[in-house]
Amino acid sequence: MPRILTGITPSGTLHIGNYFGAMRPAIELQAGGDAFYFIADYHSMTVITDPAERRAFSHGIALDWLACGLDPAKAVFWRQSDVPEVCELMWMIGSLTPMGLLERAHSYKDKLAKGIAPNFGLFSYPVLMAADILLYDTHIVPVGKDQKQHLEMTRDIAIKFNQTYGEGTFVVPEERIAEAVAVIPGLDGQKMSKSYGNTIEIFGDEKALRKKIMGIVMDSRTPAEPKPDADKNLAIQLLKFFAPADVAADYENRLRAGGLGYGDLKKALFEHYWNHFAPYRAKRAELAANPDYVEQVLREGAQRARVVAGQVMARARKNCGLR
Amino acid sequence: MPRILTGITPSGTLHIGNYFGAMRPAIELQAGGDAFYFIADYHSMTVITDPAERRAFSHGIALDWLACGLDPAKAVFWRQSDVPEVCELMWMIGSLTPMGLLERAHSYKDKLAKGIAPNFGLFSYPVLMAADILLYDTHIVPVGKDQKQHLEMTRDIAIKFNQTYGEGTFVVPEERIAEAVAVIPGLDGQKMSKSYGNTIEIFGDEKALRKKIMGIVMDSRTPAEPKPDADKNLAIQLLKFFAPADVAADYENRLRAGGLGYGDLKKALFEHYWNHFAPYRAKRAELAANPDYVEQVLREGAQRARVVAGQVMARARKNCGLR
Repeated sequence: MPRILTGITPSGTLHIGNYFGAMRPAIELQAGGDAFYFIADYHSMTVITDPAERRAFSHGIALDWLACGLDPAKAVFWRQSDVPEVCELMWMIGSLTPMGLLERAHSYKDKLAKGIAPNFGLFSYPVLMAADILLYDTHIVPVGKDQKQHLEMTRDIAIKFNQTYGEGTFVVPEERIAEAVAVIPGLDGQKMSKSYGNTIEIFGDEKALRKKIMGIVMDSRTPAEPKPDADKNLAIQLLKFFAPADVAADYENRLRAGGLGYGDLKKALFEHYWNHFAPYRAKRAELAANPDYVEQVLREGAQRARVVAGQVMARARKNCGLR
Repeated sequence: MPRILTGITPSGTLHIGNYFGAMRPAIELQAGGDAFYFIADYHSMTVITDPAERRAFSHGIALDWLACGLDPAKAVFWRQSDVPEVCELMWMIGSLTPMGLLERAHSYKDKLAKGIAPNFGLFSYPVLMAADILLYDTHIVPVGKDQKQHLEMTRDIAIKFNQTYGEGTFVVPEERIAEAVAVIPGLDGQKMSKSYGNTIEIFGDEKALRKKIMGIVMDSRTPAEPKPDADKNLAIQLLKFFAPADVAADYENRLRAGGLGYGDLKKALFEHYWNHFAPYRAKRAELAANPDYVEQVLREGAQRARVVAGQVMARARKNCGLR
């Protein structure tokens, strides 16, 4: 069974764009492979320098994923920093990584272009990512287009290490570009993104979230007026993610025919959205009340991950002449 | 008692320039402080890519230092890669290290200027060196002038981490520039250096070493001729490192007065050199015959080093919000 690996950045509150775009597809994969999912708290150090925030985000993202269906009986789920071997492997592969490879990384060049004063962590992040992948004999890494180059770098690094220190030291991973990932519109109709401030969170306070959805701006046509462009209505588009297909089609038809007010439509959208996540919300509340259980899940995951990591490190250390 | 730390690069056969310039001063320090000495096998990965060579050099340098007087009852002596926490710390401090700091490193700029295709390991070497130092609550690092900048970088990194994540996370180390380190002339009169090919090894085959010393080129003056410049004679200069002061002075006077042939002088030099290292040679042969003992010394050293490393890592991890 091919091993699939995904890293999860603990960077704050998740929204439904994250859910449909990344989280749900990843969770669906856990049934069809040997799934390895980790919370990338080492990576968070290049952008977060508040220790309480790092702890809260790491814990919060574990709750989010477990609540939304990540099953620790199916997937190995752990916190990156509980397997520190990844840093050792980073040094080992880094010693063979040409500087030019890293200097050409888009993510780094973009940061320079934006005038961000770069730190060594941001620069070396693709090497840690390569170590994340190679440490677990990963076969497949589902990546977005923005991560495609980093996976190519991982392949280059693995191939070079194998050529230098012995074929078979590392599994050379394959990318799997997620095709036709759902793009979720935000409250303003643009792509939902934290940087646009147009998000609907997966979890949060009911009143505040209702207010967000009821506040979606529509046009000034009266309820009675027929609306031939009903399929382009933002609330209808969002409703399709949460309501059964026939229910969403019914709302769309009523809007097109005239007689459905925007207020009623947004109320329906809210209810369907809220009910969609109701079981996850209940599960999350239960998990949040049991931090010891969550900690135990992550520790057991780390133990399982560490068994694989130990095998790979023994191979890599032996082949490159460390004791 | 202040903790003194020294890293030893496992890069091949040591010569008497290494011995008088670095090794003996370091070994003398073990009596006067809390001495931590490690074999830098991780660092060797940026320059050595032959695994057998890395293993042989690491083992050989352990024999060399133990034979020459490093006392594992006084100093903590271990192999860097037996305490992999150093790589984790490297990532942690690296995430706060500005790229500009590393780009200004002389050692890296020198390599670029020499047209060496740089790898990430060479570039990031000062961060690993900083981790080497900070991991052990080091107070003092004896450094040559060429390492002065790297120690300043370590201080900058430690101060920044402490400011960001809590004062007292790291001890900010002090440098101690070795003053008036002996410069040993090589076989051709230039400073003894592997890159000049003018070395006399500490340990090696008697016949080959005798041939090297007997092959020192002198001028064509006859033995009988007085030599007012006897103090500048290379064999006399070297003899002073190995013979008692009165013996060396006697040879110098005889050379000055005339009547001492160069061949006899070089024979005397060889005998004194050879006898100087005789007890170390015997000790080294004994150690070489007991690889298990040497391995045990290094493992016990690693255990002692790891106790300190564990305390520092617990502090650093807690303060920056890793579990």
